Amino acid sequence: MDFGFDARTEDYRKRLLAFMDEHVRPAEPGWFAGDSAAGRWEPPPGLAALQSAARERGLWNLFLPGEHGAGLTNLQYAPLAEITGRSPAIAPAALNCAAPDTGNMEVLAMFGSPQQQEQWLRPLLDGAIRSAFAMTEPQVASSDATNIGTRIVRDGDDYVINGHKFYISGAMNPRCKIFIVMGKTDPQAARHVQQSMVLVPRDTPGVRIERGMTVFGYDDGDHGGHAEVFFDDVRVPAANLIGEEGSGFAISQARLGPGRIHHCMRLIGMAERAIELMCTRALSREPFGRPLADQGVVRDWIAEARVRVEQNRLLVLKAAWLMDTVGNKGAHTEIQAIKIAVPSTTEWILDKAIQTHGAAGVGQDTPLARLWAAARTLRLADGPDEVHKRSLARRELGRYRSAR
Amino acid sequence: MDFGFDARTEDYRKRLLAFMDEHVRPAEPGWFAGDSAAGRWEPPPGLAALQSAARERGLWNLFLPGEHGAGLTNLQYAPLAEITGRSPAIAPAALNCAAPDTGNMEVLAMFGSPQQQEQWLRPLLDGAIRSAFAMTEPQVASSDATNIGTRIVRDGDDYVINGHKFYISGAMNPRCKIFIVMGKTDPQAARHVQQSMVLVPRDTPGVRIERGMTVFGYDDGDHGGHAEVFFDDVRVPAANLIGEEGSGFAISQARLGPGRIHHCMRLIGMAERAIELMCTRALSREPFGRPLADQGVVRDWIAEARVRVEQNRLLVLKAAWLMDTVGNKGAHTEIQAIKIAVPSTTEWILDKAIQTHGAAGVGQDTPLARLWAAARTLRLADGPDEVHKRSLARRELGRYRSAR
Amino acid sequence: MDFGFDARTEDYRKRLLAFMDEHVRPAEPGWFAGDSAAGRWEPPPGLAALQSAARERGLWNLFLPGEHGAGLTNLQYAPLAEITGRSPAIAPAALNCAAPDTGNMEVLAMFGSPQQQEQWLRPLLDGAIRSAFAMTEPQVASSDATNIGTRIVRDGDDYVINGHKFYISGAMNPRCKIFIVMGKTDPQAARHVQQSMVLVPRDTPGVRIERGMTVFGYDDGDHGGHAEVFFDDVRVPAANLIGEEGSGFAISQARLGPGRIHHCMRLIGMAERAIELMCTRALSREPFGRPLADQGVVRDWIAEARVRVEQNRLLVLKAAWLMDTVGNKGAHTEIQAIKIAVPSTTEWILDKAIQTHGAAGVGQDTPLARLWAAARTLRLADGPDEVHKRSLARRELGRYRSAR
Amino acid sequence: MDFGFDARTEDYRKRLLAFMDEHVRPAEPGWFAGDSAAGRWEPPPGLAALQSAARERGLWNLFLPGEHGAGLTNLQYAPLAEITGRSPAIAPAALNCAAPDTGNMEVLAMFGSPQQQEQWLRPLLDGAIRSAFAMTEPQVASSDATNIGTRIVRDGDDYVINGHKFYISGAMNPRCKIFIVMGKTDPQAARHVQQSMVLVPRDTPGVRIERGMTVFGYDDGDHGGHAEVFFDDVRVPAANLIGEEGSGFAISQARLGPGRIHHCMRLIGMAERAIELMCTRALSREPFGRPLADQGVVRDWIAEARVRVEQNRLLVLKAAWLMDTVGNKGAHTEIQAIKIAVPSTTEWILDKAIQTHGAAGVGQDTPLARLWAAARTLRLADGPDEVHKRSLARRELGRYRSAR
Repeated sequence: MDFGFDARTEDYRKRLLAFMDEHVRPAEPGWFAGDSAAGRWEPPPGLAALQSAARERGLWNLFLPGEHGAGLTNLQYAPLAEITGRSPAIAPAALNCAAPDTGNMEVLAMFGSPQQQEQWLRPLLDGAIRSAFAMTEPQVASSDATNIGTRIVRDGDDYVINGHKFYISGAMNPRCKIFIVMGKTDPQAARHVQQSMVLVPRDTPGVRIERGMTVFGYDDGDHGGHAEVFFDDVRVPAANLIGEEGSGFAISQARLGPGRIHHCMRLIGMAERAIELMCTRALSREPFGRPLADQGVVRDWIAEARVRVEQNRLLVLKAAWLMDTVGNKGAHTEIQAIKIAVPSTTEWILDKAIQTHGAAGVGQDTPLARLWAAARTLRLADGPDEVHKRSLARRELGRYRSAR
Repeated sequence: MDFGFDARTEDYRKRLLAFMDEHVRPAEPGWFAGDSAAGRWEPPPGLAALQSAARERGLWNLFLPGEHGAGLTNLQYAPLAEITGRSPAIAPAALNCAAPDTGNMEVLAMFGSPQQQEQWLRPLLDGAIRSAFAMTEPQVASSDATNIGTRIVRDGDDYVINGHKFYISGAMNPRCKIFIVMGKTDPQAARHVQQSMVLVPRDTPGVRIERGMTVFGYDDGDHGGHAEVFFDDVRVPAANLIGEEGSGFAISQARLGPGRIHHCMRLIGMAERAIELMCTRALSREPFGRPLADQGVVRDWIAEARVRVEQNRLLVLKAAWLMDTVGNKGAHTEIQAIKIAVPSTTEWILDKAIQTHGAAGVGQDTPLARLWAAARTLRLADGPDEVHKRSLARRELGRYRSAR
Repeated sequence: MDFGFDARTEDYRKRLLAFMDEHVRPAEPGWFAGDSAAGRWEPPPGLAALQSAARERGLWNLFLPGEHGAGLTNLQYAPLAEITGRSPAIAPAALNCAAPDTGNMEVLAMFGSPQQQEQWLRPLLDGAIRSAFAMTEPQVASSDATNIGTRIVRDGDDYVINGHKFYISGAMNPRCKIFIVMGKTDPQAARHVQQSMVLVPRDTPGVRIERGMTVFGYDDGDHGGHAEVFFDDVRVPAANLIGEEGSGFAISQARLGPGRIHHCMRLIGMAERAIELMCTRALSREPFGRPLADQGVVRDWIAEARVRVEQNRLLVLKAAWLMDTVGNKGAHTEIQAIKIAVPSTTEWILDKAIQTHGAAGVGQDTPLARLWAAARTLRLADGPDEVHKRSLARRELGRYRSAR
Repeated sequence: MDFGFDARTEDYRKRLLAFMDEHVRPAEPGWFAGDSAAGRWEPPPGLAALQSAARERGLWNLFLPGEHGAGLTNLQYAPLAEITGRSPAIAPAALNCAAPDTGNMEVLAMFGSPQQQEQWLRPLLDGAIRSAFAMTEPQVASSDATNIGTRIVRDGDDYVINGHKFYISGAMNPRCKIFIVMGKTDPQAARHVQQSMVLVPRDTPGVRIERGMTVFGYDDGDHGGHAEVFFDDVRVPAANLIGEEGSGFAISQARLGPGRIHHCMRLIGMAERAIELMCTRALSREPFGRPLADQGVVRDWIAEARVRVEQNRLLVLKAAWLMDTVGNKGAHTEIQAIKIAVPSTTEWILDKAIQTHGAAGVGQDTPLARLWAAARTLRLADGPDEVHKRSLARRELGRYRSAR
């Protein structure tokens, strides 16, 4: 159980920290300044330059293990993801390490056919296009993938897709060219082999991008928003199937593990940013003639925040280390545990940082409110915490059930 | 200590509930549908018709005691404010009972000169114009009014105002015609008589409306937004002073009491709306083959929510009853208590209602996320909860200090 | 909804407060000083004098409505119960208002035959004997009365009782002469008419008092402890049945309502005692050169405590008022609500008072640790909070279920 | 940052787990059955046999690094301390690893003169005698050691001690032969060099053992209780000074680090025991016809408990690893962090385990209530959590203060 950073990790950390200081932080003030010239749903024009700089410095596709990416283990990548979390709207995009592309590239790298990799993985790895992952549906609980309503029906050499999705992140962006769509190919099969994934180019007839969904008032346009999408008799070649029919659920599970590590480490970076802002504010404001930093309640928040961040980081590093050493399955409990612990903790810390800032904390002049909305949303994204707790408890109970 | 609703209150409640069903709820779906034809910072065009309907039904200016308004006591108005809180973006505006106009009308009714009442109170009572209250400043803690930075300097027959304010609600709206500005006329005077309030028409030279501030991504454009405003050598006649020089702090305190009752009762209405949505959702969704309403954790939330709402309502009614019977001063502890208890409770309930909705809870298709942002903000508006707790505790400790 | 104290209540309050100052507080220091001369399971010898003093002052059997007692309403008695809660080991016993006798006297007054009243109610009203209520069983959840294991079988002119009970409060006391025993007379009947209650004198053959159960280290010997009791072929005359066969569940429900009011109001008195001790300590201790009372965190606790106590008191008064005006059934939700809200709040306040005292808080020199154990236990007595929350939520959900 | 267990640790773990199963668990049922024949303040007679068995198996003095003890690092000992925490009244005593002897032996091993080691350390290492650490005083906050009231005055070849201590654990036990007493030798010196420690045999004239203090009703007699002790002109030879005059504060700090690791790892063992009991109970009880284990709220508790225990364990292991690699000073923040996080978490878990048990949870038939009292007390032992949070926050703020 060795979580120490090896030389390679330390080298990447040093270079990434420098990149954050020299490129990312300076880009922050104007990032959300308004609808970009490029359009409401596209990233600000400055992104291209940031991406070039990142590539030059070898800070590109760090998330991806194997020959297609930087080849880092989860434990090596985790501390880098944390650093990008300090500026989560910009840094991951600058490094081509932003969701949902990361998960999609993993899927294509692991399960894509050579042709699929050539057509879609390559431009994604180059940052030439963006992608979306169309899973969540308004009519069914996204925590219950077996319940999915979208149909994918084989018709000759094609698949025909009908369904209704929402909160499809990135899909408003016209530069988003390809969707991975989850649906049922065989509703009569056993529960976990009914689902399949197919590649659907965004411009396929029948794909209707209805509108952008908001997240506490934010449209997240710089990341391509979150689209409501209808699929009406959308027809794609059978070769667009990823893996085999019925493998959709298994692929989605494989996609989850690393995604959780990434999300959770970025959340820890967000929490560190919140602590930094809270402390800086507490030292500089003096209502009633004494710095906020001398107020016992504020100190209590800061101490709690520090302790909880330390706990969360150790837990995520352990999960990453387990994934590297015993695989996703062996790390199952820990992967659930970080999903349960990290978003809610980070949300709490952000709340206290906001409270320390007063009105300024809820507005656009600090990143806090926006970060809060992201952390809050992760308490329910890919299944609300409560579902994961039920599941983790069942496993825990199982240890005693068998003992009886 | 009788909190029962008298016949007059019951009559108003019945009429208001009918108005909510017949006019307000139907107006909800389109309210935030997009930037109104009237412009981003103005209310949707439907508001005028709602206001007419409310006036016809005698549901107008209910908040205002005395001859200028409906003449209700705090205890009579409180349950009506609760009902409007179930649709807080629309109902209070429809009834001409929306902040900050309510507080401003109270100030003008209590402290305005006949000429000030003629010029500003009358059109406000008619709903012909809107107003703003310019108190909060970015550079000083708004919880510490004695610390205010804006200067109001007598110069011949004028006052000259210099200052920087933000989160001035309603001030983006071009129909907002008048600001009540808080600043210091005599920084050398005793701490609580340094401040004064002056009336500043929005179109006075030197008033610069810089931008709209956001609240968790919402610009609240339908309510005129929250403006950052600069006052650069703004000159108004000395007759624009409200009350006397040095009375600003006292007036702001007088303004606070009823405002807290209104806010808190609306928050209770918001909490009731959240419970309604949470229950309805819990009954209709069946992830994993069982209604959410059968899940123990969801039931726990619902029960906690119901109990806490009952407690909060009783506490606010007691505060209202005390204000009516022994005055603002005698109700001081209770007014602080509701500020401490109600926003945080309502925020908690909204959070659980959101969690019950999954992704739909954070978006624009339910009112939950927007209500949440409002409730969260009230945890820090006119002083963060922590300041009020310190003050309430000092008073509690005082009972034992003197006893020793 | 008038919770004001009428003249009679105010008169009682004044007299009771004087009694507390003159008799109860002075009796506190020695109360738990050691095993009394009278024996480990009997009250300290000082109790008799306190009871005489209380009787003289007309402070006797205040809890009991109707002709047998003081004839107060729930709303009149509630504030008196609160006052006794400030010294809950002594004051209720001194006033002959201590559980479980109160509930037992209510049962006998409402459902007892003239003979039962003559034999058992009269000496209880006189304070000549004590009683116990034998309901809780170690093998079944006490929250589920329909599940009870004890059998009460008619045999000729007798009932024969077999069962195993524990946490039978007061039953260790040799002065406890009579048990009300709950058991099943007809396990085949409908769920809520299987149970009956019978009177079992403590010295009946087959009654075996096994041992005293503890509550966090306390044996509560001054109140007769909490006994584990076996009933082995215990035979009593059929005339010992209370009410009719099958009425046990209904009687237990009738007994619950007032009991909850009493418990909860006493808990509020305990919370007030905790606030008093917390404030006094905070003013007198100066670690690190500054009074604890100046520490922000301690102030935060004090303010939270004050606000929550106010909320709880209003909620209990409302429940009492409802019971008086619309009956137990109409007050059902509120009676559950106070069971959910009050013990946990009081426990929290006691915890903070303990923390303010450091090591002294957990020991025998303040009443805090003992009060804490009592409050904690009430979070699970007659059903854990979670069961009441489930039930309250079901009712809340029902409002929307029918609406659909 | 490698927290893995090495071969030596694994070997000890295996042997210790076997010892727990074969000796400790079987000893539990009778441990607290009543005042032992040996007397109320002495361990049950069975302890001697347990100690023999432990010695035979080489499970003796495992806590002590260096040549006097087993020579384990903190990281090696930590998982063993956790195991003993599953039965914290018996296992540590059986292994001669119980507080306060552990800390006292460390002090003597590090700072004792050869003569002091010969006279007191040797019999302590042999388990022939017990010892106490007399630091806490009723009149001053124990979190503020600089504030201590006890005086140690040099008088010729002696020191004369006057003071009043309480909660001196183990001191009621007649087999406790030696006290380490903390007091001030020079109240005029700089704040942290005023204090000294002297060895005071328990039977020295002027030492008055007043009474045993309780902890939520428990007297902890099996561990020698917690004594209130007066020192009236107690005279000991100057050679009884530990280290130099003025070194008392420094020694107490050195004593703290390992003590925190031990306490916190035992607390984690206690939490594991609570989870085990909670799960077992939840699987076996079926109120309302369904196992508690199927209740969503109970599952939520179990999951939260598991996640928090994992976080706490990682945090303590990191602190232990830091102490081993960079020393107490370098581990300062982490040592504070575990003091803040672990007792409160374990208390929470025990509370939920108690709630799952209903009345049985607060009594003497499960270890839960007693464990709870211990965990609760550790939230205030050697300084309440709040003091440690203030201090940790100051350090955190310092990082940003210097940066400005």
